[in-house]
Amino acid sequence: MSRKSIAVDMDNVIADIETNWIGLYNAEFGVRIRKEDLRGKPEDDAFPDPLAARSLIFKPGFFRNAPVIPGAQEALIKLQQNFDVFIVSAAMEFPNSLPEKYEWLAEHFPSIHWKNIVFCGDKRVINTDYLIDDHLKNLDFCQGTPILFTAGHNVNVDRHTRVNNWQEALALLEGELAKHI
Amino acid sequence: MSRKSIAVDMDNVIADIETNWIGLYNAEFGVRIRKEDLRGKPEDDAFPDPLAARSLIFKPGFFRNAPVIPGAQEALIKLQQNFDVFIVSAAMEFPNSLPEKYEWLAEHFPSIHWKNIVFCGDKRVINTDYLIDDHLKNLDFCQGTPILFTAGHNVNVDRHTRVNNWQEALALLEGELAKHI
Repeated sequence: MSRKSIAVDMDNVIADIETNWIGLYNAEFGVRIRKEDLRGKPEDDAFPDPLAARSLIFKPGFFRNAPVIPGAQEALIKLQQNFDVFIVSAAMEFPNSLPEKYEWLAEHFPSIHWKNIVFCGDKRVINTDYLIDDHLKNLDFCQGTPILFTAGHNVNVDRHTRVNNWQEALALLEGELAKHI
Repeated sequence: MSRKSIAVDMDNVIADIETNWIGLYNAEFGVRIRKEDLRGKPEDDAFPDPLAARSLIFKPGFFRNAPVIPGAQEALIKLQQNFDVFIVSAAMEFPNSLPEKYEWLAEHFPSIHWKNIVFCGDKRVINTDYLIDDHLKNLDFCQGTPILFTAGHNVNVDRHTRVNNWQEALALLEGELAKHI
């Protein structure tokens, strides 16, 4: 049997954009927003001043300096043993993110070959067996099996199989593999 | 019936990389290579000094300053009336090309929304009804119908439906449309 393919989103799935965003917002506006304050709110509407928050996305370093989501590096290396793993990021909305995301991947995920990186707009055109993502706008229209990765903004979403962290994602996908042997 | 989708390659299909490359090579090495000299040769082996030629790809402006392939702008605007048109470029091999290609598209193809731009590595993961491309490495493995766009390096290729220019591509695709009405 040929290897199954997995598309893995970047922001809030392997790159901890939220932590970086909160840090920048607090530094810029002298406030003390905490992760809990944003829970369950759509990203575009989560900060007290949504327009100011959005402007931060365009600052140099917004993507480059994001921490890695815990467990993502180990999980992807493990998944690569049995799956074709692609990083698929809807980076095109923020063109400033293109070189930053490329460099970030080279630093934190050197096992991902450039052939397996996709920066796109609409993910509907991507065909992989699985998509791990935190956004319904991607999961609802993907061609493979959608897997919802928990992020602050999606805790109230009630569709798609949910994984809360990379340990759960790895267990789910290794379980899928076992089904097909 | 839902609209069919077309993936359109950039280099040598809408962006005239070859003309730019020859100009840079001649200026750098004081020679007078002409388009005809490269005909039928694989790109990696076409110039007298292939390694020197390859180094030019990494120069700032290599992608940004490429002329538009004649007829591409008019053809894509026309195709967008009836198809979902995506620009799909294997840009990831040359990360320096990412911002240059984005800016080039914004200047020359403003009708292409960022949602319809894909910069990837291996195109196997892209699923559209058609792929217009000059490289067998993409056409041979695409999920839709492959269409070979003539470039100097592929004139001796004898598989896939060939179009020699954008007039022929437009006629072919509008013909396909008529079949399904």
